[in-house]
Amino acid sequence: MSDIPKSHPRYASLVTREQLVAAAHAGVVSYEGLTSHGRGEAFDYLLGEKTSPSALSAEKLAAAVLLAAKHPVLSINGNTAALAAAEIADLQKASGAEVEVNLFHRTEERVKLVESVLEKAGCRLNKGKTERCVPLPHDRGLCDPEGIGSADVVLVPLEDGDRCEALVSMGKIVITIDLNPIDRTSKTASLPIVDEVRRALPNIAAECRRLLAEQKPVLMPEIDSRAILKAAVSDMEAFLEHALD
Amino acid sequence: MSDIPKSHPRYASLVTREQLVAAAHAGVVSYEGLTSHGRGEAFDYLLGEKTSPSALSAEKLAAAVLLAAKHPVLSINGNTAALAAAEIADLQKASGAEVEVNLFHRTEERVKLVESVLEKAGCRLNKGKTERCVPLPHDRGLCDPEGIGSADVVLVPLEDGDRCEALVSMGKIVITIDLNPIDRTSKTASLPIVDEVRRALPNIAAECRRLLAEQKPVLMPEIDSRAILKAAVSDMEAFLEHALD
Repeated sequence: MSDIPKSHPRYASLVTREQLVAAAHAGVVSYEGLTSHGRGEAFDYLLGEKTSPSALSAEKLAAAVLLAAKHPVLSINGNTAALAAAEIADLQKASGAEVEVNLFHRTEERVKLVESVLEKAGCRLNKGKTERCVPLPHDRGLCDPEGIGSADVVLVPLEDGDRCEALVSMGKIVITIDLNPIDRTSKTASLPIVDEVRRALPNIAAECRRLLAEQKPVLMPEIDSRAILKAAVSDMEAFLEHALD
Repeated sequence: MSDIPKSHPRYASLVTREQLVAAAHAGVVSYEGLTSHGRGEAFDYLLGEKTSPSALSAEKLAAAVLLAAKHPVLSINGNTAALAAAEIADLQKASGAEVEVNLFHRTEERVKLVESVLEKAGCRLNKGKTERCVPLPHDRGLCDPEGIGSADVVLVPLEDGDRCEALVSMGKIVITIDLNPIDRTSKTASLPIVDEVRRALPNIAAECRRLLAEQKPVLMPEIDSRAILKAAVSDMEAFLEHALD
């Protein structure tokens, strides 16, 4: 860890960056994943770094979608594991969803490292065979045919637009968590959550527990993904409107 | 280089990220600098990834400021060197400004590496002694007392807000190039340029050449930094307004 002064006004954010850099050196996060984190930070500035009411609504919908699903899978990459392994383990407990590692910059070594981070945090993992079951060039098409390959609902935090689009084209309900409301990931998702992953996941888990405590069947909800994105974009415009006050 | 498919709609952007990752592995860019690049990318999305009319006006003002200065210095960090060493060398030729390396995550080894990248691109560098001449904790306070330390105008592309503020507090005219119009760097700068560094630098150099060709004295211009930032924020709001069309 370098010598960041605690007096720096962005100390917490700088420390998170250093943690991600350490995760990259350990092989858990790809180095390109550090730039993704930066993009997320920028959009989070425009949300005031907090969960908006519309994001919270989307998170509650996501809980219902996961519980109503026949075969829900949480598809986890290096950044999500490095930032939120404990939150993923807790959401798995709350929702009963499977957890499967899936990487944009895929190497078998990195898959094993990410799996290890998740298992240490308490996740039970799908680690079946991998086949090209998503229609994509590149290793991003690989997944477990009995996991993501046959899931009806997939939650993909911090996902690439290409892969999100491919999963949707396979007829799956795709829930994304991405701070950028105007990229293809969010625009393509069945249910886009525009929020920081460590804020979003506990909200989804809490709503799963609340719904289960009602002891009533959870029905697959109607989702207006466009309204969700419009609300997020409006929040950012409203923030910019007063950003120089 | 990894196996990014050319069919990926963001191929050029992915390749630039890979180049920065390579620069980080070579020691030129800090790994935290990769997250900074990501933040810049996000704000550049909101500018449509092009130079706005107000940014171009700010770049033309920057040229006048550099030419009117008694002792202008271009303060260069790892990201700027990795992205735009040739553009810095050309701006040095066009403006006559000194070039000095100054790093947020400073080690002597990395200073030498960044200097080497700049020299290979054709920069002539200030490499005097370094002293703590900027009022900051951390090694960021170090600079050449006969370079940045005694400059009247400093151009600091991709600078931290803390350091920008400290330079302004020393009475210097500080020109920044930063895609985020609402952070302290832009808000504190005497002349904030809200544009991508590889687009901004050639525009400044071209205006320096145009002004010099007039063979008239260049006077220090009036600068309305707030109007510049308001225009940038308005551009982003306008972009968001139609981002989901």
